[in-house]
Amino acid sequence: MKLLIVNPNISESVSELIAAEARRSASPDTTVDVLTAPFGVAYIETRAEAAVGAYATLDLLAEHHRGYDAAVVAAFGDPGLLAAREILPIPVVGLTEAALMSAAMLGGRFSIVAISRRIRAWYQETVEMHGLGGRLASIRCLEESLPDIGTVQTDKGAQLLALCETAVQADGADVIIIAGAPLAGLARSIADRIPVPVVDGVSSAVRHAETLASLAPRPARTGSYAPPPRKAWKGLSPALGQLIGRD
Amino acid sequence: MKLLIVNPNISESVSELIAAEARRSASPDTTVDVLTAPFGVAYIETRAEAAVGAYATLDLLAEHHRGYDAAVVAAFGDPGLLAAREILPIPVVGLTEAALMSAAMLGGRFSIVAISRRIRAWYQETVEMHGLGGRLASIRCLEESLPDIGTVQTDKGAQLLALCETAVQADGADVIIIAGAPLAGLARSIADRIPVPVVDGVSSAVRHAETLASLAPRPARTGSYAPPPRKAWKGLSPALGQLIGRD
Amino acid sequence: MKLLIVNPNISESVSELIAAEARRSASPDTTVDVLTAPFGVAYIETRAEAAVGAYATLDLLAEHHRGYDAAVVAAFGDPGLLAAREILPIPVVGLTEAALMSAAMLGGRFSIVAISRRIRAWYQETVEMHGLGGRLASIRCLEESLPDIGTVQTDKGAQLLALCETAVQADGADVIIIAGAPLAGLARSIADRIPVPVVDGVSSAVRHAETLASLAPRPARTGSYAPPPRKAWKGLSPALGQLIGRD
Amino acid sequence: MKLLIVNPNISESVSELIAAEARRSASPDTTVDVLTAPFGVAYIETRAEAAVGAYATLDLLAEHHRGYDAAVVAAFGDPGLLAAREILPIPVVGLTEAALMSAAMLGGRFSIVAISRRIRAWYQETVEMHGLGGRLASIRCLEESLPDIGTVQTDKGAQLLALCETAVQADGADVIIIAGAPLAGLARSIADRIPVPVVDGVSSAVRHAETLASLAPRPARTGSYAPPPRKAWKGLSPALGQLIGRD
Amino acid sequence: MKLLIVNPNISESVSELIAAEARRSASPDTTVDVLTAPFGVAYIETRAEAAVGAYATLDLLAEHHRGYDAAVVAAFGDPGLLAAREILPIPVVGLTEAALMSAAMLGGRFSIVAISRRIRAWYQETVEMHGLGGRLASIRCLEESLPDIGTVQTDKGAQLLALCETAVQADGADVIIIAGAPLAGLARSIADRIPVPVVDGVSSAVRHAETLASLAPRPARTGSYAPPPRKAWKGLSPALGQLIGRD
Amino acid sequence: MKLLIVNPNISESVSELIAAEARRSASPDTTVDVLTAPFGVAYIETRAEAAVGAYATLDLLAEHHRGYDAAVVAAFGDPGLLAAREILPIPVVGLTEAALMSAAMLGGRFSIVAISRRIRAWYQETVEMHGLGGRLASIRCLEESLPDIGTVQTDKGAQLLALCETAVQADGADVIIIAGAPLAGLARSIADRIPVPVVDGVSSAVRHAETLASLAPRPARTGSYAPPPRKAWKGLSPALGQLIGRD
Repeated sequence: MKLLIVNPNISESVSELIAAEARRSASPDTTVDVLTAPFGVAYIETRAEAAVGAYATLDLLAEHHRGYDAAVVAAFGDPGLLAAREILPIPVVGLTEAALMSAAMLGGRFSIVAISRRIRAWYQETVEMHGLGGRLASIRCLEESLPDIGTVQTDKGAQLLALCETAVQADGADVIIIAGAPLAGLARSIADRIPVPVVDGVSSAVRHAETLASLAPRPARTGSYAPPPRKAWKGLSPALGQLIGRD
Repeated sequence: MKLLIVNPNISESVSELIAAEARRSASPDTTVDVLTAPFGVAYIETRAEAAVGAYATLDLLAEHHRGYDAAVVAAFGDPGLLAAREILPIPVVGLTEAALMSAAMLGGRFSIVAISRRIRAWYQETVEMHGLGGRLASIRCLEESLPDIGTVQTDKGAQLLALCETAVQADGADVIIIAGAPLAGLARSIADRIPVPVVDGVSSAVRHAETLASLAPRPARTGSYAPPPRKAWKGLSPALGQLIGRD
Repeated sequence: MKLLIVNPNISESVSELIAAEARRSASPDTTVDVLTAPFGVAYIETRAEAAVGAYATLDLLAEHHRGYDAAVVAAFGDPGLLAAREILPIPVVGLTEAALMSAAMLGGRFSIVAISRRIRAWYQETVEMHGLGGRLASIRCLEESLPDIGTVQTDKGAQLLALCETAVQADGADVIIIAGAPLAGLARSIADRIPVPVVDGVSSAVRHAETLASLAPRPARTGSYAPPPRKAWKGLSPALGQLIGRD
Repeated sequence: MKLLIVNPNISESVSELIAAEARRSASPDTTVDVLTAPFGVAYIETRAEAAVGAYATLDLLAEHHRGYDAAVVAAFGDPGLLAAREILPIPVVGLTEAALMSAAMLGGRFSIVAISRRIRAWYQETVEMHGLGGRLASIRCLEESLPDIGTVQTDKGAQLLALCETAVQADGADVIIIAGAPLAGLARSIADRIPVPVVDGVSSAVRHAETLASLAPRPARTGSYAPPPRKAWKGLSPALGQLIGRD
Repeated sequence: MKLLIVNPNISESVSELIAAEARRSASPDTTVDVLTAPFGVAYIETRAEAAVGAYATLDLLAEHHRGYDAAVVAAFGDPGLLAAREILPIPVVGLTEAALMSAAMLGGRFSIVAISRRIRAWYQETVEMHGLGGRLASIRCLEESLPDIGTVQTDKGAQLLALCETAVQADGADVIIIAGAPLAGLARSIADRIPVPVVDGVSSAVRHAETLASLAPRPARTGSYAPPPRKAWKGLSPALGQLIGRD
Repeated sequence: MKLLIVNPNISESVSELIAAEARRSASPDTTVDVLTAPFGVAYIETRAEAAVGAYATLDLLAEHHRGYDAAVVAAFGDPGLLAAREILPIPVVGLTEAALMSAAMLGGRFSIVAISRRIRAWYQETVEMHGLGGRLASIRCLEESLPDIGTVQTDKGAQLLALCETAVQADGADVIIIAGAPLAGLARSIADRIPVPVVDGVSSAVRHAETLASLAPRPARTGSYAPPPRKAWKGLSPALGQLIGRD
């Protein structure tokens, strides 16, 4: 099985974290390719940055999805996920969505642990977009600014662990979701020190993408996830124009 | 007062409808400029098309907002609205949002009348994004495809009126929202034939934008609508990069 | 344009605050008249007081609305608002409703800052009545009793400012609503010291009332906001009886 | 035990129906007195009529509650119920509330069968006010106008029965609530012909009022149902003024 | 009237507390019998324990309900309640359900005070199952383990009273629900020291069961609370098999 | 990997359908064992039957889970699922839950197609229990009684297909969930004739169980899914008693 993973941010260091965790998580016969957004920001925290990342994601997926069995949008917050699901003929999974699904099958209420205060509102809205706001216990986040997005796991490991503990003790979380591609793999290394199951977006997304590909659902030919109706377009890349405008 | 209106679609004919209705609706001392998206689709019906429109909207607003008192995102579904609200120092209003606010002050539950079946899911999600799903009586839509988006009001006038009547009689709507920039101005011409108040996105957005500009709220300096934190970016237009990445 | 503003409380000092802020906020060609309830309480904090204020408001509006283009119910909590909307042929706007609409167009989640602990439950229920409970971050309130409702802004200015700051920092408010007619105008004077947009009920209501009047919606002839069906009545003022019972 | 029942409408014929059903339903040692509103409308269908009925109810209860163990607000829609609960030292129960509680203990989802189309929105809002909107299967109502509110049971018996059957078969109701004081007693006479339990507001309210009186809860001394804080008032009846303004 | 009360736990000491409070609360002409689960755990705190208690409750009720006018499931959390309601021809009431109904008629929002931290999630889910999550202010609980479930009222009285006070002052509870059969009767003894009404599950359930029996609703013959459709079964007690499988 | 699947019903013919579909769906290196409930009913449609099935499921899982990597509760409606999750040290997945998760990653709103009218309420409550009620478009069901639960796929194939089409066209479903173990495998055979993706509970549960086992989350040691606190028990099987009462 072949998975295409798109990092909606421009940070190659984060793409490497994603690729490493994806390969550790995938089934033995799955191959993983990771692409990095050619335009956008270092890491997405806001609605505006997510709008940019969504467009970059769509463009990359339109250009490169052929030959893959499934795709992953590898930023927590799932920029462009629902849009990509409409236009691609293969399953597409997002990190938030995937982590929520895993967490929902492991406990009742879950908390998200995140890398910045600013990112909270966007994550909250993403959980609500997926219809699971009623199971969210809390979003806990680092309060200080990050010196380097590529080394946040080592720079802020102790604080992140403390946030997990607070989510369990104070917020009643049955499961912890470690959020954000820059934290890919952290769940694996701190799971022993947290008294509830810990879930990671990248590994969940890789496994759920494999599952969807193996279940082999027919793509929607009608309804709100069918390909967009044929219509005039201009100024898009040929690959994206063909998928969206279809003429 | 100066208003900047962005049409997130590439249809100049729709921009002209928007401009005409905006000028009819604005206060006497308000001037209105309308820009058309340089890339995208003829009219937005899907999440993928909205993602494209959102990016085009952000780009246009970043480039052109200086000197204006407020801005309007002139596609029902509000592509890029929340993103624009983060990065611009002036108020920004969307057509859906504005129509919902007007409708909410005129009655209890409202229905949306729309130009295509495909557009329903996106509109539903937009209403829920604004937190007003509990007041939505129904979304009624034309079922057949549109020969020409610029003449839908005359081509489909009778069907649209019938949808309004069904929304009132069968769905219990206290107010009707005529949705979509291609229907700008229709509310004005059919209001007499509908037994409840009828609301239009363009006129509501123009008036609410004026209101927000006159109330002169300070832009957010903290919280989730403050400008995005400074960070590395690439591949954006200079105007957008400066607003998003701020360096 | 002529606006009729009804203060549902008996406090003339509050009516003066309302009138002053209304005139500062209105468009140049708008005239504003303010009436004070002839019976009721000094200021409304409870459901019982609101029931009294609702009846006084209906009675005043029935008697005096002729010749006006729109009306405002000028107590936060909107006593009698939905009832008045049914029976009057002109738009009617409430302070809570108006402030919520302004806040909803300026950010994601908002907090209400209020003058007494007792008033919280009523405000909470009012926000939920308008269907916007999902966007309410918190209601913060003064804890001590008020020596004089007419001078609360100067007596309690520092505490009110601290409540705003707590709502932003601890509750995640993107917008602050300064609630209650006795605080009319306060938003204007403290806006510079609060790091998110600040909204006021009176100025919002005045502007939104102007907007509704200018959009000139037809009054409902059917549905739940049409005038009440004709039926027997007794013991009402002639003006109210005619609007409610219509015989 | 002594119960005071207030009919918020001016119709003596309805008060007689209420009294008859109340006495049939009450425990043997309970005495029931019914008062009719001295002002208002023949029967309440709208928010405006409910606002009038709420004030009349408060006034009657303030004047007459002494010596009673509990009170009932005997219009479906519960006008003035929450207000009365704040100011009276005895339990107060409403018809809607009481019927909802009975229905909730007999099945999962319930439908309300009502006397007019216009009344639907008000009933819907009342169910939501009590927090039980999630268990409402539907509100079914007579569509034609009523010649005489006092004889609706005999004039419209067959249609009402058909509405019950539709609610069960089409809407999935597990329980039927026969709504409105003019239908008091109907549940009793048609129960055999409906394949799910049928609940009536008056009998439920009488029994629940007895229960609350027997449980003898202490009145609230703090919180949002404590008596209103002492403050200046004018223009109220002495009994109401004393309970609301307490001076 | 004859009431059958089932204690879903194996603790005879708790059955005695239940019986004592039930007899204090019942009408003079009501007789009360209490049965204790023959298998299960000392007291239910978790979903697994509730699943066991549900089965024990169904079995006991199937075997013993004949000759009774109504039944009560006497564990807070209502194990087996909805199942029993389907199969029994008499009304069945649960402690949580009954307390929620009483509390809902005495105030706006209520808090539950409970005997252990572990029990919170189950109670929360029970309140949501009954559709009243929107009125729950909080669940406050003892944090330390219980030495003896039969003497928790005396061992932990002061802590329980402090939890009530916190629920009122910090969480805004208008009513307190003392939860759990081991606390039966506590509400009665501490009501004077709590500034809002206090509700108890056992006394509420007894009174509401009497009410339902007196209203004499016909059992459901269709819908989701009709007896289960006839089908093959095996391995159940004859009484339960007859009610569930009906062959 | 070794999966244990429990059929909460007594029908061996359904266990065979489950086993066949599970083996078709599982990864090559996964082995699947299916156990059938030793007591209960032919197929579960009601809350009472689900309570019986929950207990049978817990008992079977307690006795047999050792040596397995994950378990599946193989009745749509997930009887005993949350209880089993508390007491077992391995992941447990339910058919409803698993199908909901698959569907949620394939589209926006989904419909459930089911084998009987009676089963609807229980399925609805299960979806709400999992917190995904907001994404449920409808539950469509066969209306006539089933002659033989083991051959429903062939007996009712055309009707089931028609229900799928109605869910898509009339209810706006983006994804169809074929519900119930007796329909295991049907999705596979009719997918080509349905214009949206079709999801099956058994195949989804098998794949999601594999995913959870491969992610290897640590079992909860605290929170509401930790094993139940140690306490006295009696009358349980030794395996269940040890897991629940732990002494």
